Amino acid sequence: MMKATIRKDGKVKVEDGLEDLSLAETFFLLEREKIELFSDVGRKINLEKFFEIGSRLDSRLEIKCIVYRDLRERGYHVKHGLADFRLYPRGKKPGEGAATRYVYAISEREPLPMKYILQKVKMINNIRKTMILAVVDEEGGMTYYSVKEAIFKPGERKVFETKYIAHLVKDNVFLWDSPERALNDLFEGGFYGKPFGGILQLSLIESAYLLEKNIIRIVKGGEEISIDDFFAHCSDTMENFSMIYGVYRDLRETGLIVKTGFKFGSHFRIYEKMDLMAFPHSRYLVHVFPIDHVFKIPDISRAVRLANSVKKRMIFAGVGDAIEYIDITRIKL
Amino acid sequence: MMKATIRKDGKVKVEDGLEDLSLAETFFLLEREKIELFSDVGRKINLEKFFEIGSRLDSRLEIKCIVYRDLRERGYHVKHGLADFRLYPRGKKPGEGAATRYVYAISEREPLPMKYILQKVKMINNIRKTMILAVVDEEGGMTYYSVKEAIFKPGERKVFETKYIAHLVKDNVFLWDSPERALNDLFEGGFYGKPFGGILQLSLIESAYLLEKNIIRIVKGGEEISIDDFFAHCSDTMENFSMIYGVYRDLRETGLIVKTGFKFGSHFRIYEKMDLMAFPHSRYLVHVFPIDHVFKIPDISRAVRLANSVKKRMIFAGVGDAIEYIDITRIKL
Repeated sequence: MMKATIRKDGKVKVEDGLEDLSLAETFFLLEREKIELFSDVGRKINLEKFFEIGSRLDSRLEIKCIVYRDLRERGYHVKHGLADFRLYPRGKKPGEGAATRYVYAISEREPLPMKYILQKVKMINNIRKTMILAVVDEEGGMTYYSVKEAIFKPGERKVFETKYIAHLVKDNVFLWDSPERALNDLFEGGFYGKPFGGILQLSLIESAYLLEKNIIRIVKGGEEISIDDFFAHCSDTMENFSMIYGVYRDLRETGLIVKTGFKFGSHFRIYEKMDLMAFPHSRYLVHVFPIDHVFKIPDISRAVRLANSVKKRMIFAGVGDAIEYIDITRIKL
Repeated sequence: MMKATIRKDGKVKVEDGLEDLSLAETFFLLEREKIELFSDVGRKINLEKFFEIGSRLDSRLEIKCIVYRDLRERGYHVKHGLADFRLYPRGKKPGEGAATRYVYAISEREPLPMKYILQKVKMINNIRKTMILAVVDEEGGMTYYSVKEAIFKPGERKVFETKYIAHLVKDNVFLWDSPERALNDLFEGGFYGKPFGGILQLSLIESAYLLEKNIIRIVKGGEEISIDDFFAHCSDTMENFSMIYGVYRDLRETGLIVKTGFKFGSHFRIYEKMDLMAFPHSRYLVHVFPIDHVFKIPDISRAVRLANSVKKRMIFAGVGDAIEYIDITRIKL
């Protein structure tokens, strides 16, 4: 059996070996009884003692070990590097080709700031690699996510020529004047609103956008409401209205069709083009957060799992000075 | 056309009619131009004016109107009553049979206290009816949920005779002494832990339960940890540990197999019996809340949609003096 020595600084020297072992590699070999490990005074180190020493050197050691083992068991060659691990294409050894994926190991219990994801994903996408998030759950089970910046294909934006009068009834907006024209124009032309019997009902967000774009005027109890008053009403009615509305506008200005994602527990569902035939089949779900949001990982897992189970991609929109979109998908390695 | 009069107190009298109309019925008939509506001084009332008057009498009027219309469009007979609406079996009129379902209308924007759900569902289940939650989303779209108390079929509880030594490594617990026996006994007998290579890894919750049941002893750095110290460690590591653990214990004591629900964004997934062949197919997902939790409805919609999309039922566990379980399922009416 191969012999190795673990030094106080965490370096693991293999007898006759050229390279040091990382702690995760050492764990893997030790657990499989491929090496005998000794302290620098020659005392034999078992798994328990190894973790005792290792945890002092790296507080994330056990998570890294679990991920490293899982990647190796799936047949990948793995190296330490810029991320926790660099992953080589299956069957390729380091030296036979470049690593294509950078893996970050994380426990489901760790908080994950949106800014951290953005910073890592930009860095990794810049060098044309893919970012993988390897999540270790409470029972040591693994889930892998591919993380990338979302880029939307801009769609065509329809121009509306008629100006409509909409009626605000408490928190709902109805177009019951000239309903047929509104249906043909707003609904069939831009998928604004929802037809009910013969009339069209707009959501608050849709109404705010159409009001801002000067396509509707809004009336309540016979009197017209100013844009400021309407936005104030929306802010009173919906939590985080202005943040969520900002993303709605950004997506609509890109030419995308944006509808509520309520049935999927997200803020929006997105269609890339206007096609009434395609309707149950939106392509993306979007959930909006302030850019300094800190995710609990189970919340990511729930949203992504749901989106993927209905064949959509899950986008997290972070709102700060700009709006940034992150696309997180569950993958099988 | 039928003529009706709306009085200041909200009563709607139909000319020659025996019964008053409810406001939701009035809206429905008015929108369909089946009645002409007048004030008690004979002024004609249009839709806009109707909402102006009605909203003063019932702050939830527009939500009720949307739900009423949707139920009628689906071919149901609907009556006001104990709940917002009583629903008769399709094709049956009131008088031809009893209402079987009680419908509560709610906007996705309204907060929904768990205690409110529990109170309603108990009352309705007591008289052997089904509770339906009718949710109106931001765009006026409908989602229907069937709500009931969850009752689990008790399973068989295995008795373990060997006592195992488990090693705590930071937040992970490993059984690497006598691993084969532990695998046969704990894993194959009760689905405790996760096998890794030759050893067994337990989650903190599983470890706490097995420790409390005197099936394992836990050792860290060569020293045994007391049950109090281990529970304190768990509470430091996991948010709301004692609340979540209480539900774990309750379910395990019922003889159910309880594993992490992380991949589905819930606390637990539940198997009704020990059957290694059935494994990817748990029956329930369980998420734990304090009994005074107030739901945001999009959170319910996300959890239920995900559970149903993977053919599981979504259970919300409320923890107070006792533990109560609510089963919420999306249904098509």
